[in-house]
Amino acid sequence: MMSGLTLIRDPLEMQRKAESLRASGRRICVVPTMGALHEGHLSLIRIGRTHADTLITTIFVNPTQFAEGEDFERYPRPLTQDVAHAREAGTDILFLPERDAIYPPSFATSVAVEGLTEVLEGKSRPGHFRGVTTIVTKLFHLTKPHFAVFGQKDAQQVAVIRRMVADLNFDVEIIVGPTVRETDGLAMSSRNAYLSPGERRAAPALFQSLKRAETLIAAGERSHDAIVREMQRHIEQNLAGIIDYLSVADCETLRETAEIAPGQSVLVSLAVRFGRTRLIDNTLIRV
Amino acid sequence: MMSGLTLIRDPLEMQRKAESLRASGRRICVVPTMGALHEGHLSLIRIGRTHADTLITTIFVNPTQFAEGEDFERYPRPLTQDVAHAREAGTDILFLPERDAIYPPSFATSVAVEGLTEVLEGKSRPGHFRGVTTIVTKLFHLTKPHFAVFGQKDAQQVAVIRRMVADLNFDVEIIVGPTVRETDGLAMSSRNAYLSPGERRAAPALFQSLKRAETLIAAGERSHDAIVREMQRHIEQNLAGIIDYLSVADCETLRETAEIAPGQSVLVSLAVRFGRTRLIDNTLIRV
Repeated sequence: MMSGLTLIRDPLEMQRKAESLRASGRRICVVPTMGALHEGHLSLIRIGRTHADTLITTIFVNPTQFAEGEDFERYPRPLTQDVAHAREAGTDILFLPERDAIYPPSFATSVAVEGLTEVLEGKSRPGHFRGVTTIVTKLFHLTKPHFAVFGQKDAQQVAVIRRMVADLNFDVEIIVGPTVRETDGLAMSSRNAYLSPGERRAAPALFQSLKRAETLIAAGERSHDAIVREMQRHIEQNLAGIIDYLSVADCETLRETAEIAPGQSVLVSLAVRFGRTRLIDNTLIRV
Repeated sequence: MMSGLTLIRDPLEMQRKAESLRASGRRICVVPTMGALHEGHLSLIRIGRTHADTLITTIFVNPTQFAEGEDFERYPRPLTQDVAHAREAGTDILFLPERDAIYPPSFATSVAVEGLTEVLEGKSRPGHFRGVTTIVTKLFHLTKPHFAVFGQKDAQQVAVIRRMVADLNFDVEIIVGPTVRETDGLAMSSRNAYLSPGERRAAPALFQSLKRAETLIAAGERSHDAIVREMQRHIEQNLAGIIDYLSVADCETLRETAEIAPGQSVLVSLAVRFGRTRLIDNTLIRV
């Protein structure tokens, strides 16, 4: 592990550096982030390190993946702290591009995945995944990775990026890191910073509702509606929020079916708004 | 120059080969084609050779860039002849993927450029450029080129691909080869094969109308409408076809203005249908 960290802001400099690393036979792994790095991100960096000679962390709060009226402006940007965390976790190169260098005025191109992006997060956040797939394409071209690590916390993003990588023949292996949780079960998220103390105390109800779903499925429950009803009951009893969605879906196609099939792997996922915050969480269950 | 030609059909094999070529320091140039190779394509291969250690020609009649009702089914596919021509012009690797290997049933991703694609060819051929930018993205990822050569004959395609390459940070240098013409001026095109003998005799009127535009501009004419009127007059006098468009536009933005500005580079372009054939041609003029 290297102790030094190189900070690069210029996209062209990043690309030249990546090309020269590849030419000298080094294996590159990239961890794309929007900064406000917490233990979840740092675990992805540590996982990435085990696969690569050079670990590149990118920090870019990507405006195009925020829908109208979302939290782009107030999204936390604790840069000094991020640099220290990224270094400690084992980042060799921290790529920190400026917005105008990524999206000059003439910018007119997008990458889109159909189908997978029209449910769950995609339904609630119009344009979100188009923003994600476009910026990830750009970051892949700029950092030329052999591997890229994404968090299971954003399960639908993982499915969409896997689809894009396969469809567009990106020569990048996607690695998924598990969700890191607070001791009370709340999934780590940069958006947890928005929670009031009362909301923070109630928030573990989301994780608990996923555990309820796991328990029901382990006990033999196969009905989508029965599982979702129990999750809804648990959340509404414990938390004054507005449920955006609760879903039990195939983990690859993200399609919901009335009954879980034998042998199916399902993604149980949720999004809930409370106060100024919108939180998501999920669990993967092999039935 | 190598005399041997390697034929590759499997996308993954192509990508592995390209990666190993890059790793050994070789410079790769790709010439993407739909086959039915004529002297225009061969000139692009010869230009490409001068830039690269390894010249990859791709042949794939890409279904997604044909609009509904266009000539995808009857597009010429003279494979044996293509292989011989590609070898003679200096191709090292001929990449010939199957349709299902490029677009498996689960395929759901596309790359799109806005603005530039909504005029001229894009207006007449809905979805055409989305098909082009998506397949070119895939071919770039599979052949990992340092350079790619496209023909000036498809001037709007060149503008769209340049925009995509810049916007998505592809590390590929785009080289443009000049239009190759028959002795009577007709631009070489795989679609010329569709022309009846009578249509073939009349077809040079398209090129002549571009020369008329050049003469007018050289003589000081700056009005879009005056130039287009003269082109229209010449075509209608010499050819029983239906004019799809005649355009004098900025060569980068493809926007038409009433008057050509001093110092502007303009693209004079046209599309005309006659019988079962739709032909395009263009000329770049630095004013």
